[in-house]
Amino acid sequence: MFTKGNLIILSGPSGTGKGTVCKKLLINNKNVFYSISATTRLPRPGERNGREYWFLSKKDFEKMIKGNKLLEWAKVYDNYYGTPLDKVNELREQGRDVLLEIDTQGALSVMKKAADGVFIFLLPPSLRELEKRIRGRGTETQEIIRKRLDAAVGEISLGTKYHYLVVNKNVTEAVNQISAIITAEHCRTDRNLGIIDKVKNEEI
Amino acid sequence: MFTKGNLIILSGPSGTGKGTVCKKLLINNKNVFYSISATTRLPRPGERNGREYWFLSKKDFEKMIKGNKLLEWAKVYDNYYGTPLDKVNELREQGRDVLLEIDTQGALSVMKKAADGVFIFLLPPSLRELEKRIRGRGTETQEIIRKRLDAAVGEISLGTKYHYLVVNKNVTEAVNQISAIITAEHCRTDRNLGIIDKVKNEEI
Repeated sequence: MFTKGNLIILSGPSGTGKGTVCKKLLINNKNVFYSISATTRLPRPGERNGREYWFLSKKDFEKMIKGNKLLEWAKVYDNYYGTPLDKVNELREQGRDVLLEIDTQGALSVMKKAADGVFIFLLPPSLRELEKRIRGRGTETQEIIRKRLDAAVGEISLGTKYHYLVVNKNVTEAVNQISAIITAEHCRTDRNLGIIDKVKNEEI
Repeated sequence: MFTKGNLIILSGPSGTGKGTVCKKLLINNKNVFYSISATTRLPRPGERNGREYWFLSKKDFEKMIKGNKLLEWAKVYDNYYGTPLDKVNELREQGRDVLLEIDTQGALSVMKKAADGVFIFLLPPSLRELEKRIRGRGTETQEIIRKRLDAAVGEISLGTKYHYLVVNKNVTEAVNQISAIITAEHCRTDRNLGIIDKVKNEEI
């Protein structure tokens, strides 16, 4: 029986490894599609419309904001970034799961607009480990590291608003857990009421 | 971090293949333990106390009923059958998942007593297929087959009360879906609030 695809939101503080987990998840789950963001920033050399981003004019983006056609959006410096609702729905109607990898602020917006979304919060195994990962990038000053860790502590409290918590101690294990969540969510009764009617009303 | 084991209830109309699915599930999931029922019927040759059943006297069983020490129980002809709560809790406290394979009547009782249980309803792919399976046993008259199918239709409506619906079209696929549900349930936020506090309150 045909069932609509699910919207899967993967979020968590920066430094927990969302990007790495997402990439592996997409390789392992051929029915999961990555949601491509829209932006008003100019394409960089080699970037293609509809692959890295949907590149929009400022005017078009603001029209989408006014028309409530974005699942979430943010303005970073002078540019807009956001998730076009139509593109997500199109894939879901085709039975495909759509994966959204966003920061905790964006996830809060999506919670208000997509009540049937599957919200997964990716946690670092410990703050000490998170500190190591941020430090490992080698680009941050002591002050910025401290600031980002404080921000992470605040964001971790938001984890209670999500359906699932996954600890990213080991990428393979985290990906397996998220894959299991994706499979399990397809079996949830509220997403499958049609099956009961179908079997029950069969003529024999 | 230590988390308590989950109680997994697998139910569905008779003939859907609960037994076969359970056996394979236990082979694939070493952390899942089968809940052994208590009964007042006498052990048959080769049966051992604590393996096939917990064999109890009628007096002891009735004491457990009065003491509210059974997750569910039923009287079949002259004998009692039921699930001892203590044995289930003991395993769960050790971090083990406990699998209960019971009929839909028993599952309704468990729903009232174990609010944190994971309730999975196993559906036949179709009534026609269920009829074939019941007929395949070769022991039933036409009248009994009709009666059992009518009962199944009534029971299938109860599926809406469960958390998950799994269609047993293919045993391997059904077992994989239930295994995914078991993994996913361990990631549910309400079962893991301790992790958030632990990471958040870490001194660094």
